[in-house]
Amino acid sequence: MHRTVLAAAFLSIPAAAQIGSPLAFEVAGPGVWRAEVGSPEAPRLISEDGTRRAGVLRVPLGEAEHPFAEDAATGWVDAGRVGLRFPLGAAEEIYGLGLDFGAVRQNGRIHELGVDHWGGRTGRTHAPVAMWVSSAGYAVLVDAPRRMTVYVGTGLRSQSDAPPVVQDRNTDDRWIAHPAGDSVEVAIASAGAVVYVFGGPTPLEAVRRYVLHSAGGGVLPPLWGLGFHHRTPTRWSEREVRDEVLEFERRGFPLDVIGLEPGWQSHAYPCSLEWSEERFPDPGKFVAELGELGIRVNLWTNPFLLPGCALEQSLAGQLATHRVWNGAVVDFELPDARTTYGAHLARVALDVGASGFKVDEVDGFDRWLWPDTARFPSGIDGERARQTYGLRTLQLVDGLFRARDQRTWGLARATNAGGAGLPFVLYNDHYSHQDFIRALVNASFTGLLWTPEVRGSESGEEWLARMQTVCFSPLAMLNAWSSGTKPWSFPDVEDEVRETMLLRLRFLPYLYAAFASYRFDGIPPLRAMPLVEGWYEAADAGARRKHLENQWLVGEGLLVAPLFAGERKRTVCLPRGKWYDFHTGALVGGGEVVEIESPRERIPMFVREGSLIPLAAAGLRAPVAGSRTPLEVRHYGTEPGRATLYDDDGRSFAFERGEHVWGTLTYDGEQGTSVWSGDQPFATWGEPTWVSVRPAEDD
Amino acid sequence: MHRTVLAAAFLSIPAAAQIGSPLAFEVAGPGVWRAEVGSPEAPRLISEDGTRRAGVLRVPLGEAEHPFAEDAATGWVDAGRVGLRFPLGAAEEIYGLGLDFGAVRQNGRIHELGVDHWGGRTGRTHAPVAMWVSSAGYAVLVDAPRRMTVYVGTGLRSQSDAPPVVQDRNTDDRWIAHPAGDSVEVAIASAGAVVYVFGGPTPLEAVRRYVLHSAGGGVLPPLWGLGFHHRTPTRWSEREVRDEVLEFERRGFPLDVIGLEPGWQSHAYPCSLEWSEERFPDPGKFVAELGELGIRVNLWTNPFLLPGCALEQSLAGQLATHRVWNGAVVDFELPDARTTYGAHLARVALDVGASGFKVDEVDGFDRWLWPDTARFPSGIDGERARQTYGLRTLQLVDGLFRARDQRTWGLARATNAGGAGLPFVLYNDHYSHQDFIRALVNASFTGLLWTPEVRGSESGEEWLARMQTVCFSPLAMLNAWSSGTKPWSFPDVEDEVRETMLLRLRFLPYLYAAFASYRFDGIPPLRAMPLVEGWYEAADAGARRKHLENQWLVGEGLLVAPLFAGERKRTVCLPRGKWYDFHTGALVGGGEVVEIESPRERIPMFVREGSLIPLAAAGLRAPVAGSRTPLEVRHYGTEPGRATLYDDDGRSFAFERGEHVWGTLTYDGEQGTSVWSGDQPFATWGEPTWVSVRPAEDD
Repeated sequence: MHRTVLAAAFLSIPAAAQIGSPLAFEVAGPGVWRAEVGSPEAPRLISEDGTRRAGVLRVPLGEAEHPFAEDAATGWVDAGRVGLRFPLGAAEEIYGLGLDFGAVRQNGRIHELGVDHWGGRTGRTHAPVAMWVSSAGYAVLVDAPRRMTVYVGTGLRSQSDAPPVVQDRNTDDRWIAHPAGDSVEVAIASAGAVVYVFGGPTPLEAVRRYVLHSAGGGVLPPLWGLGFHHRTPTRWSEREVRDEVLEFERRGFPLDVIGLEPGWQSHAYPCSLEWSEERFPDPGKFVAELGELGIRVNLWTNPFLLPGCALEQSLAGQLATHRVWNGAVVDFELPDARTTYGAHLARVALDVGASGFKVDEVDGFDRWLWPDTARFPSGIDGERARQTYGLRTLQLVDGLFRARDQRTWGLARATNAGGAGLPFVLYNDHYSHQDFIRALVNASFTGLLWTPEVRGSESGEEWLARMQTVCFSPLAMLNAWSSGTKPWSFPDVEDEVRETMLLRLRFLPYLYAAFASYRFDGIPPLRAMPLVEGWYEAADAGARRKHLENQWLVGEGLLVAPLFAGERKRTVCLPRGKWYDFHTGALVGGGEVVEIESPRERIPMFVREGSLIPLAAAGLRAPVAGSRTPLEVRHYGTEPGRATLYDDDGRSFAFERGEHVWGTLTYDGEQGTSVWSGDQPFATWGEPTWVSVRPAEDD
Repeated sequence: MHRTVLAAAFLSIPAAAQIGSPLAFEVAGPGVWRAEVGSPEAPRLISEDGTRRAGVLRVPLGEAEHPFAEDAATGWVDAGRVGLRFPLGAAEEIYGLGLDFGAVRQNGRIHELGVDHWGGRTGRTHAPVAMWVSSAGYAVLVDAPRRMTVYVGTGLRSQSDAPPVVQDRNTDDRWIAHPAGDSVEVAIASAGAVVYVFGGPTPLEAVRRYVLHSAGGGVLPPLWGLGFHHRTPTRWSEREVRDEVLEFERRGFPLDVIGLEPGWQSHAYPCSLEWSEERFPDPGKFVAELGELGIRVNLWTNPFLLPGCALEQSLAGQLATHRVWNGAVVDFELPDARTTYGAHLARVALDVGASGFKVDEVDGFDRWLWPDTARFPSGIDGERARQTYGLRTLQLVDGLFRARDQRTWGLARATNAGGAGLPFVLYNDHYSHQDFIRALVNASFTGLLWTPEVRGSESGEEWLARMQTVCFSPLAMLNAWSSGTKPWSFPDVEDEVRETMLLRLRFLPYLYAAFASYRFDGIPPLRAMPLVEGWYEAADAGARRKHLENQWLVGEGLLVAPLFAGERKRTVCLPRGKWYDFHTGALVGGGEVVEIESPRERIPMFVREGSLIPLAAAGLRAPVAGSRTPLEVRHYGTEPGRATLYDDDGRSFAFERGEHVWGTLTYDGEQGTSVWSGDQPFATWGEPTWVSVRPAEDD
């Protein structure tokens, strides 16, 4: 273990078997180490903005040791390339590397990380965060504004201490095509890079250190952001949007946010970023009227500007050499450009009352985005602009709302390392239910949030299964801009879909507390199983590997294991402890793989012994401060349970200035108490009713 | 037009809209211009080895003009990146960019060129030649030992002279997602690059200039190389191989080359590169016995060496930092390593009488190849080694045979720019019949040869259709090392398959002359339609685009348009002129798209008016010098026809020292003459019989 190594002179690399010199790590924070290789290029992704820390940690972090032996992690620069090598133990499992739709366990895979629309090329994705998390309880992050390739245990070094066994394919049927390597290696075509190591001792603590170090903690959405979101067809005018909102209410479907697509603008693709006078003649009035119904308005944007429009004219000299869909591309690395663009967005959208944005297409898709040969006036090239453009756009929008002391909650097509604290949830055009769940799971390793949005389905059954998944995700959304689908479009499951959406609303006290833990303690509100206590005692590696991909934890003690269309049964891999069926209260098991069966209207969920699940009274809108929304606190099993509540004004940053309270619920099956850290000035949550959920045969 | 521009001082790039400075082209050869950008890295792909020129051109080249206006092609280096920009006209069609299985017309596509197993990622392929050919009659080649990205008319420059029309997607249903750009742009993470421009005036002449400039002309195989090749199951011993050869003969199927797979070695994957004493106790005797039957032996290799084997021990200090399948990787950039490895191959294989090699797996597949982080003792990194490894291995093998004045003909999994003159045909593990044909067609733009090998089929009909295709390709091969399939494995088409293979053998006089034109004049023996006279007068752009992908020319005047399994009809796009059905002699059309119908046993082929097709008497082995193999010369239509013949010893490089003759056949339907450029000392071809092929109703 080493805390600080004096920066060694960087060696020019001999053409020898052993390459590179040891990385010279220095302490950068509690359990965080940092090293530079060569001359890192601008811009940086990680700002080390610990100043945004919301307060002292409520959940302490363990003592972290540096994971690598003194000279085991090495780096070099040669011919304009950075090389990095980190040791990898034979039993270690590696996760992370950004928003991967293809797999959760990354050993044996090669990620060509780069911001892109996800299309099956490993590593090219909407958030190609160059950070991996080890089952051994540490994480490594490489900060470089470039595409890079990460080899997870694939390269076979001739100098390996533990080389794989040599086999003869001619005679040995056990011959394997992919013998395992003993390293994670990274190649970057760049003059330098910054390397961070986050200590554990657990994988969760390594992730927390990343979130806390890079963003001062995760993001806390406004409470309404956790309600239901719906997006309307792109050419609709204000009357049609208003009618849609009323139809949701009339049918009893919850709704908090309505999203307008490009048609809110007078010209889009490329964008004028001005309201269409034809479709939205009085946007202020329109937004205010929806506000009176308790509905927020979210606006679609992409930052590719109509040549000749007022905003584009005011950005002369601050635009890239290339256009996108004929639209001028703003250089967000330039402070003046950010100011001009931000002021315009604020006037057009925030002044009118819009609650947030859908930031589309900042990921790119090679054929329509700028090429790598593009140049930006700040001096960066097309490749660097692409790796950072989503992140910069989101930071800009975040700043607009922060400046008004107003929380926002929106959608983004691209981000990168350093985006953990930003109020955006990722989405894309892909639509595999299984892949969407993998993305939801993977997101938690690298400070990301993902919504498996619903758009349409082949059948009512699939519609319901997808709706169940999205209602236990960071952002519950029907994105119908193209399809025009309604929640009630499949009459055979209309009631079940309504109940699922209402259940989402009931879960808001629980979800809001989970996000508060993310904000204050850096604990992801939804997380992959390796970030859950007792996971490695649940089953053997094969069973864990399979279930990694199709189940996740929400908050402190709720395991979600969805069914796909056509399924009534599945297996669930339960971590150590005792787990109870959320719906029936039956003991299901613990530290084992169990087969479960479920009617289609219930998403299979399991509560860990010792947890309580606080549910709000059913409603169509997210509760607001002062509503004293009644709580039903569910208890499972025989041991005393405990849950956290969190409350604040639900919409501003006053919570960062101390204006928030934490609640602790305890219930042993007979005696329940709720204790608040203050006198509950926000009063979002009302009095609890205590309910022990028991299977029918126990009655 | 400019011939020489004085090298301008290279400008550092301002962050402005117009990027780069004009490329400073200098004349590098007849109709060939060369420019450098920055500091090009070693190693180079193009050797400019015009010294290998076989003789004076028999088919003259037109007068070439430099295709770009004085300052229109630009380049720059910044932040370790080369950028290049070439103008692209609105009507220009771009082809080439190496062995692409996905498309022939490249406009609107982005190629991330890099040596790799082809797996659907545009540009990652076995031969990612960074050269494109324009319908306007020129070609551009970028020489850099790096991966690079080529944007063919996708980037939209804000400074474009002819920007696309701006549309409003909100209201305009004609909105298009991919407006066309006006440039070909190239991005390379490198300190420099070399750019070549090859003038026309036709696309074919641009290709010829590349082949002549980079390799002194194409490759002329030994005559036996154009016969039939078969590869046997990997664990077979010498008796089983010999029995297979005899079985071909017994059943009347032609065979010239038998290929042994890894099992000829004592240890493979990693490789000992020594014979297996168990399976091949006396290799010299084995090869000699097959030789007496007229059969050549080809040996599988990959250059990943068994640690501890004699060859690996002798290469200490000349191996890369990483292994492949546990095998040591030789650094072929080191002259000593080439000498040591070559001497070993010569002893083990050439001394024993082997005729050539199948050079496998030098393309890599990321998971088992060395990573980019690998280093080679010569100083190159893993990325550069990967782009050049196939090429270097083939050059090494070529040199071994040249040193013995012996022509070889083999298989390769990877090559790159500069490989045009090497005696190898590319192959891979993919198996789409349609994709294989696209590869065959595409290969011709960039000096490559591709075999659509047959391995197995779902049905006899498919088996026959695939066999027809491979018999009109550069290398007719059944590769059954894994499947054990025989040509006669589908009894319902056994006779038709035999006839197809025999027809291949009958075409040898025609094919050998086509390859001689490749060797002497740089004219690809099989070529894509844009390299055929009269193509642009054949039909409109849409029809041409469709047929680009499924028909090709062999030699001077034979158009092949295969059927796929299940088809009896198809359309053919015929260039200007008159075209006749090869089988029936019927006039089919010219300068138009025609629908044709064909029984399954006949591959549709069409002969251009004015051509003759010389066929040899049917045989099981390729003819040899002195055999005076009788010729049947087929004549079509009503005009006089003409064809070229070529003859030499069929096996050595004596032809380069002048020992060869050209023959000219002419026949007007009544009078036929054959005129030779010498007194026919080789006498491979005998007297012609003249046949006018006419449809039955003409009789």
